[in-house]
Amino acid sequence: MIKVGIIGATGYAGAELVRLLVNHENISEIHLNSKTYENIPYSQVYGSFKKIIDYPCGNLLLAELAEGADVLFIALPHGLAAQMINKEILSKTKIIDLGADYRLDSVEVYESWYGVKHDSAALINSAIYGLCEINRNEIKNYNLIANPGCYTTCSILSLAPALKNNFVSSENIIVDAKSGVSGAGRSLSTTSLYCESNENFKAYKVASHRHTPEIEQELSKISGKNINITFTPHLVPMQRGILITSYSRLNEGVSYDEVYEAYKEFYKNDTFVRILDKEAVPETRWVKNSNYCDIGIVFDERTRNLIIIGAIDNLIKGASGQAVQNMNILFGLDEKTGLNSVPTFI
Amino acid sequence: MIKVGIIGATGYAGAELVRLLVNHENISEIHLNSKTYENIPYSQVYGSFKKIIDYPCGNLLLAELAEGADVLFIALPHGLAAQMINKEILSKTKIIDLGADYRLDSVEVYESWYGVKHDSAALINSAIYGLCEINRNEIKNYNLIANPGCYTTCSILSLAPALKNNFVSSENIIVDAKSGVSGAGRSLSTTSLYCESNENFKAYKVASHRHTPEIEQELSKISGKNINITFTPHLVPMQRGILITSYSRLNEGVSYDEVYEAYKEFYKNDTFVRILDKEAVPETRWVKNSNYCDIGIVFDERTRNLIIIGAIDNLIKGASGQAVQNMNILFGLDEKTGLNSVPTFI
Amino acid sequence: MIKVGIIGATGYAGAELVRLLVNHENISEIHLNSKTYENIPYSQVYGSFKKIIDYPCGNLLLAELAEGADVLFIALPHGLAAQMINKEILSKTKIIDLGADYRLDSVEVYESWYGVKHDSAALINSAIYGLCEINRNEIKNYNLIANPGCYTTCSILSLAPALKNNFVSSENIIVDAKSGVSGAGRSLSTTSLYCESNENFKAYKVASHRHTPEIEQELSKISGKNINITFTPHLVPMQRGILITSYSRLNEGVSYDEVYEAYKEFYKNDTFVRILDKEAVPETRWVKNSNYCDIGIVFDERTRNLIIIGAIDNLIKGASGQAVQNMNILFGLDEKTGLNSVPTFI
Amino acid sequence: MIKVGIIGATGYAGAELVRLLVNHENISEIHLNSKTYENIPYSQVYGSFKKIIDYPCGNLLLAELAEGADVLFIALPHGLAAQMINKEILSKTKIIDLGADYRLDSVEVYESWYGVKHDSAALINSAIYGLCEINRNEIKNYNLIANPGCYTTCSILSLAPALKNNFVSSENIIVDAKSGVSGAGRSLSTTSLYCESNENFKAYKVASHRHTPEIEQELSKISGKNINITFTPHLVPMQRGILITSYSRLNEGVSYDEVYEAYKEFYKNDTFVRILDKEAVPETRWVKNSNYCDIGIVFDERTRNLIIIGAIDNLIKGASGQAVQNMNILFGLDEKTGLNSVPTFI
Repeated sequence: MIKVGIIGATGYAGAELVRLLVNHENISEIHLNSKTYENIPYSQVYGSFKKIIDYPCGNLLLAELAEGADVLFIALPHGLAAQMINKEILSKTKIIDLGADYRLDSVEVYESWYGVKHDSAALINSAIYGLCEINRNEIKNYNLIANPGCYTTCSILSLAPALKNNFVSSENIIVDAKSGVSGAGRSLSTTSLYCESNENFKAYKVASHRHTPEIEQELSKISGKNINITFTPHLVPMQRGILITSYSRLNEGVSYDEVYEAYKEFYKNDTFVRILDKEAVPETRWVKNSNYCDIGIVFDERTRNLIIIGAIDNLIKGASGQAVQNMNILFGLDEKTGLNSVPTFI
Repeated sequence: MIKVGIIGATGYAGAELVRLLVNHENISEIHLNSKTYENIPYSQVYGSFKKIIDYPCGNLLLAELAEGADVLFIALPHGLAAQMINKEILSKTKIIDLGADYRLDSVEVYESWYGVKHDSAALINSAIYGLCEINRNEIKNYNLIANPGCYTTCSILSLAPALKNNFVSSENIIVDAKSGVSGAGRSLSTTSLYCESNENFKAYKVASHRHTPEIEQELSKISGKNINITFTPHLVPMQRGILITSYSRLNEGVSYDEVYEAYKEFYKNDTFVRILDKEAVPETRWVKNSNYCDIGIVFDERTRNLIIIGAIDNLIKGASGQAVQNMNILFGLDEKTGLNSVPTFI
Repeated sequence: MIKVGIIGATGYAGAELVRLLVNHENISEIHLNSKTYENIPYSQVYGSFKKIIDYPCGNLLLAELAEGADVLFIALPHGLAAQMINKEILSKTKIIDLGADYRLDSVEVYESWYGVKHDSAALINSAIYGLCEINRNEIKNYNLIANPGCYTTCSILSLAPALKNNFVSSENIIVDAKSGVSGAGRSLSTTSLYCESNENFKAYKVASHRHTPEIEQELSKISGKNINITFTPHLVPMQRGILITSYSRLNEGVSYDEVYEAYKEFYKNDTFVRILDKEAVPETRWVKNSNYCDIGIVFDERTRNLIIIGAIDNLIKGASGQAVQNMNILFGLDEKTGLNSVPTFI
Repeated sequence: MIKVGIIGATGYAGAELVRLLVNHENISEIHLNSKTYENIPYSQVYGSFKKIIDYPCGNLLLAELAEGADVLFIALPHGLAAQMINKEILSKTKIIDLGADYRLDSVEVYESWYGVKHDSAALINSAIYGLCEINRNEIKNYNLIANPGCYTTCSILSLAPALKNNFVSSENIIVDAKSGVSGAGRSLSTTSLYCESNENFKAYKVASHRHTPEIEQELSKISGKNINITFTPHLVPMQRGILITSYSRLNEGVSYDEVYEAYKEFYKNDTFVRILDKEAVPETRWVKNSNYCDIGIVFDERTRNLIIIGAIDNLIKGASGQAVQNMNILFGLDEKTGLNSVPTFI
């Protein structure tokens, strides 16, 4: 049985992790860390946990937590994990970091996009990018897992087979992305207020969102080419869900059927990726509250654009579910353990 | 292992049942019946089930289904179950009816509120009212379970301890009830359109909603008095959830603490009822996607009104979850089997 | 032409006032005051005003504003207006206060419910309660108008004719009220975040909401009796709108028709109150973005409860629209000027 | 004073037209035609109109209506206007058709995309495409105005200056479009139900939406080149609003500032088009309930994509507001008459 600790247990990603782990059959203990809610019963932070987790949050140092936990999940804003993690801690426990600090291979790229110095640059190469379907075999050999971003997971899974198979031009790939509001987390900001988000649709951080280099890095590895993408995130007035609509030019001589079959083949062993029927397109509700990534493939013959559309639950496959999936891989468990919930479309 | 059939598997309550039963550890087979979607793969009706249930719906007669199933769930509009069920069928299988046909003890009351003739009036007394926390011990002796209505479950659980203990006047009990839109089901009607329900709040069927006699019948039994209530349902622009706010006059000499302790005592063995802290009030999000009923108790000293507020997920504790709970009781399983999901408040 | 100033122009009520006044045919000048957004163009605070109001907010003292304005609207949290207003200012300009400071006749009641000392208690009797349909004739004689609260407006308009005519018992009047989220204003709080309010329904401040004494005070005046009400506010996941469901016992000998006709008569000259057809009930969408108050009248014969349901747009008839209506009265204009927009139900 | 008739007055676009026209200072009479609601008071169809329009809908033939009306608005599904309109009718009255029947110059293109025969193909060239900002000067010479589609209006206004000025490549223009649910109208369909649209995001009619040829036709005229676009509509869980995100490659030698200034210049006399500040992006709430089209201009230097984002209220600038604007042009009125409402962002 596994003992886990969650640092940042009271944010949305943290709460979702707790929810998933409470019913995970291989977990014996969950320590909840929260600076803001230290000593406050978890069920007072989130009433949903009443009679489920009534014990309080702690506020221990990472080094202390590392003593008693088999794995620690870190769900904090970027920059903080980089300050906390060191070699000694990694020698004692495994870490799955839901933040951005260890996702990028290049310290320079990190520092340029995030605008902060990286406090443990030396450890960047000790981390594996935890996109399970792509790096499954390597993940189990690492102690530090950089759990991918939400937009990233959806974008990479959607584009990987097309690029791997050299079906599309590596030039001018566009990812038009849309996210529910929970992606902004629980911190206070006017734009996250109900009356400012509801009944509204907008783009934000156009051509400047920090998930861009992460997507480019991984797609470049998969394709063997240097990939730059145009990435435009939008905010959808709903709680959960990400849908990305990607546009790339189909290379001459490649047929729709060939693309479709390659997608089926690429993910044939992946429970959590569902390639939809030909021409069918995903909807975020069909993956809500689940770890699935649904992918739809359409070809616009008039313009030769291949339109790949992907959908995930940003809090699950885009954060906490994938973190559990990574934990399952790390501990040699069935990857699906604790992640078998059917999407709750209503 | 239990073989189940669901008649009306493609309505919202049906779909929710399927979702719960798919992961129920004691179920070996699920037959899905649907007149509308006969022969259509279930995952085409609800994309959420892709790679989970890809087999098609059938459209068998109840008598045929009764041959191969240990229990049949009926999730149809009122009147249809009454046409279908007979003694022979009940001799072969157990039936949990999510509709209204067997909930009322009196055929006259049924026919007066529903405006239709009851087609199997003789069977009304063969049914038990399946409100698990109240009738748990009797349920297991029956083959026909009348699963309670959504408003009803929430109202009765909220008021039962106060009336059982004679804490409040049986005169002028008011239940001001609010429901999410999924309560209206999946059938087409202008008022259920997104643009007609969203950003709107209204009362409907004021003083004439059909759950009224059901609540009165059960509360009368519990209190030993003839209870009439004023019942006003409202429609909330959200998908799931019922919250009821009840008003009753606290009898002289009864203290708030006495009431509070009695509620704790009344439900002390009921996992799915959570009595909140003193003065705390429930929110539908804290029970969303779960089988919990949260109850809050407030006393308005200025007016001597006891204000009991209850919240459930209308599709789970108010329909499919309670149906599973009833099945668990019928088959001697732990009542919580398949119902352990933590509410997903986001 | 009238010159107006708005103090607190960047809150929701303030912004709504600006929106209404921009198209008011008798307004020549609008000064916008905002502590938070001093010197910032109004169209940068609210993009909706681009090319409409691009000039910046000021941050003048009330005394300065009083020099150049014919009327000042104050849309600030309670307590602040009481600090700002004095006799000298009132000798120079008219004030319509959208806050609570001058609504209650009794300083003791104010201080007890609001928990703060009143800083200009001597002025309380210089103010008139600005519920236009009730106090229209007196309003024009005052320089200080206490614009009523949102719940209050809806509750009083709904109950006034029944109490005025002595149709119902003054004992045990219950007002179960529901409001959209904009009622909480634009200030930052976790509970106002999209992901905390959306897809949720809850009661709050049960038996303790500050609009209670305001409703009681005015209903007591109207009925000539001491009225206590049980008042329970709830939060609805929508932006605008208040609906109140009130319960009172119909006195013996009073018929539904008598009540209905009395309501029609009571409001026969009031454009903004619409008595619905018999048995019909209001919906918040039918009054959205308008100054209407819709009232529906239902009688539950089984329990003898008269159920009066009222609906308003909380930001308009419940705040800024009524403020404009008060201004129209003060300046001898047609009461409807600037308030003729048809509700935008979609 | 103008007498108007509205055919299809009870759909969403029709209702929005009625709302706008009721307060239009140059309208003396509004006849409402509705097949479905013949003889039913308009305020019973939409409660918002109580005490505003209580007279019933009629159901006259177009020929009869043409006798008494100065202008007729047709808000019907495609195909019906083509059946109704003929030369004689056009000799008696002006017609503004909110449907698709007269928007495309080519009968073949119409019949191919709409899959129906055009019943008055001879009249196609008698119609002018009523995108006011582009065709203002010609509109006034026509009796038959083809009011543009909602996606179309937003897409063309967003791209016109860039193409007119030859700033971007005419190859591979992508329009990723998002619409609120009211775009689907009031007809009954499962996908338009609240529980199917709410908390969901999806693409639909990918590479096959009927507004595509309309956008291509008008952009081709503006640019003088043959333009094909990749057009992907999505459904947003909100009532009103369209936002389009367009991607095109900036030609070598063109600077962002040059583009920005050209946009300002292009629309300098157009009240209803607002070019946002540099790098700023529109939000649908800032144009809600108004006739504005907001346009934001961003340049992704890394990929040389020009990202033009436009936002409108689909029911107003995308349908009924533009129809009123067309009427104003036809009758020589100030184009803004009846369209001065400030967006209601809450």
